[in-house]
Amino acid sequence: MKEKQLLMIPGPTPVPPSVLLAAAAPMINHRGPEFAEALAEVTAGLKRVFQTQHDVFVLTASGTGGLEAAVVNMLSPGDTVLSVSIGVFGDRFASIAKAFGVKVESLDFEWGTAADPGKIRERLAADEKKEIKAVLVTHNETSTGVTNDMAAIGPIVREHGALVLVDGISSLVAMDCQTDAWGLDLVVAGSQKAFMIPPGLVFVAMNDRAREAMQKASLPRFYWDLGKAKDYLKLGQTPWTPAVPQVFQLRAALRILEAEGLQACFERHVRHGAAVRAGIGALGLKGFADPKHASNAVTSVRKPDGVEVAALRKLLLEKYGVVLAGGQQSMKDKIFRIGHLGYVSQSDIVATLGALGLALKELGMDVDAAAGAAAAIEALGG
Amino acid sequence: MKEKQLLMIPGPTPVPPSVLLAAAAPMINHRGPEFAEALAEVTAGLKRVFQTQHDVFVLTASGTGGLEAAVVNMLSPGDTVLSVSIGVFGDRFASIAKAFGVKVESLDFEWGTAADPGKIRERLAADEKKEIKAVLVTHNETSTGVTNDMAAIGPIVREHGALVLVDGISSLVAMDCQTDAWGLDLVVAGSQKAFMIPPGLVFVAMNDRAREAMQKASLPRFYWDLGKAKDYLKLGQTPWTPAVPQVFQLRAALRILEAEGLQACFERHVRHGAAVRAGIGALGLKGFADPKHASNAVTSVRKPDGVEVAALRKLLLEKYGVVLAGGQQSMKDKIFRIGHLGYVSQSDIVATLGALGLALKELGMDVDAAAGAAAAIEALGG
Repeated sequence: MKEKQLLMIPGPTPVPPSVLLAAAAPMINHRGPEFAEALAEVTAGLKRVFQTQHDVFVLTASGTGGLEAAVVNMLSPGDTVLSVSIGVFGDRFASIAKAFGVKVESLDFEWGTAADPGKIRERLAADEKKEIKAVLVTHNETSTGVTNDMAAIGPIVREHGALVLVDGISSLVAMDCQTDAWGLDLVVAGSQKAFMIPPGLVFVAMNDRAREAMQKASLPRFYWDLGKAKDYLKLGQTPWTPAVPQVFQLRAALRILEAEGLQACFERHVRHGAAVRAGIGALGLKGFADPKHASNAVTSVRKPDGVEVAALRKLLLEKYGVVLAGGQQSMKDKIFRIGHLGYVSQSDIVATLGALGLALKELGMDVDAAAGAAAAIEALGG
Repeated sequence: MKEKQLLMIPGPTPVPPSVLLAAAAPMINHRGPEFAEALAEVTAGLKRVFQTQHDVFVLTASGTGGLEAAVVNMLSPGDTVLSVSIGVFGDRFASIAKAFGVKVESLDFEWGTAADPGKIRERLAADEKKEIKAVLVTHNETSTGVTNDMAAIGPIVREHGALVLVDGISSLVAMDCQTDAWGLDLVVAGSQKAFMIPPGLVFVAMNDRAREAMQKASLPRFYWDLGKAKDYLKLGQTPWTPAVPQVFQLRAALRILEAEGLQACFERHVRHGAAVRAGIGALGLKGFADPKHASNAVTSVRKPDGVEVAALRKLLLEKYGVVLAGGQQSMKDKIFRIGHLGYVSQSDIVATLGALGLALKELGMDVDAAAGAAAAIEALGG
């Protein structure tokens, strides 16, 4: 028998059984009263999760589609934006803007580190002519396992006056994101992350400043038109036929999250992040992320000497059923990544570290195979 | 107890129970071997359904997203296209092109009628300078219940040399669409139609001429980039995180369709279309579509005298659980539509016509309530 699978990648995350089954409900009319009721409930729930009084829209797409929606609704050809990138997904946000003819000025930080809010302030202060129309920034960089300090960055950008467009694809629900209080004008989140539902939906929160910007923005848009999303939401609909199963699943997952409480959910992710990092350290592995900004959603781990990342992932998958992610782009073969956001339990973390210890030992590393799991158990309060 | 629901709209269509449950499978890594296997199987199945030897890509989006993908991958700003429109969805395809700065010349036909291939030939023959880069055409116009003769139109456009970009969103699986044999360069289809799976995926078939056009096309694109889709397909992946549940469902549905056989599936839709039209006629109702081109996927019905469409739909929904669609845009309150594509049985059709007869009588129409169901039964071979 194949080993039971433990999905420990930074999205898609495991889905609770009751949420999985919510997708199996009979199909309904997406322009009828039953769908309108579901859309109203999930929209209200999303507003609480995004901590916003403003609009949140549900689009049928992957996370990248949400970033494209941010670009085409907020900007015009030739606009200048400041791209604050700390990894693959920050770079992707910038690439989308470039693809649409936006001038992108890059403020890149070394991978593994967080963006320095002071440097952002400095760059914006030098923009006396206010040429920078928007700042693109990633809340949680999934490729490096680093979280940016949006509580600091949001107000710095607001002081300058540029729009803050946030890739929160893997941050929402996994960590505090105070959209309104931090002055984040547009925030994108993905269904397949800490929301604990499958991929297929992306959520876009947008405030009044963003809505005004949208009215002036002239990049071509149709599918991603958030103005249309707003008009149809009033009718209890989406402009285009939505991924109905994922809307049912979102409703089921939000009910679970509301019962847990948002703060408790953040604390769960803090606890899990700490346990994974403790376990990694006890196995003699080194985290790739600056410890001060290590993500509680995903942990990036440097390749240990003498062990190939591909071989390690293959062994974990085939012998232990544990699915970890590799490094992306220049980080390929240099790091591997453990996702611990969403529907991940304390037991999943302990089990993952146990399998990792066994696999590392089997691949020739001189290590106490039980040390990782033991350290995680201790960190979890053992 | 609420009446059992009978979803008879032209998409989303009902989903077979086994296909519904396929969505409830545990989540997997979208960049792992299990997903690659599923993607390979559904891609091969889609090629058989599209009757093409060329590429078919699976995108996470609604059907409208697939039309946007067609526009941005095939065209450049300032290009001229000929929009052949016979309804709401033909107009939408044109609107997308306009939103992206494409010059759209309209060749519209009266709603309820099909496009006249002779008129298309005439217009293209007059384009001596070959300014028309592409022809946009809807295979099955869901808003009016009319099917265009793509077997005639495809070769006419090929003779001129323009690309044929086909909205086949509601036609694929429901009716014969010989992508290669008819010279259709790019064809878009939606998951929530005769494929019998929920909304969330759109399929884009594209041949070598379309691929060459893509290399020259300069409209901005990122999420919809079919070149990236091709590159990732070689790796058994999609560029962006896909709607995994719908990919599982597509696999399950294609297996059912393969067991039935494509020709048998088309014949089933022909039989169902004929039964619905017979039932409608027996109830004294008039079809909106030109009978020579009436769709076998959806039947549009003119509002009977003295009965309001909204009241009829409400009564059908609330008392009989039968969900029908209204008219769109200028057809609102003038027609209603019965979807009979996808997972619709002979019993569903008989039941729908029975409920329709009861509802019409209840709303004051002088009608033999059983006549529609009886005529449908007869048409089905009774």
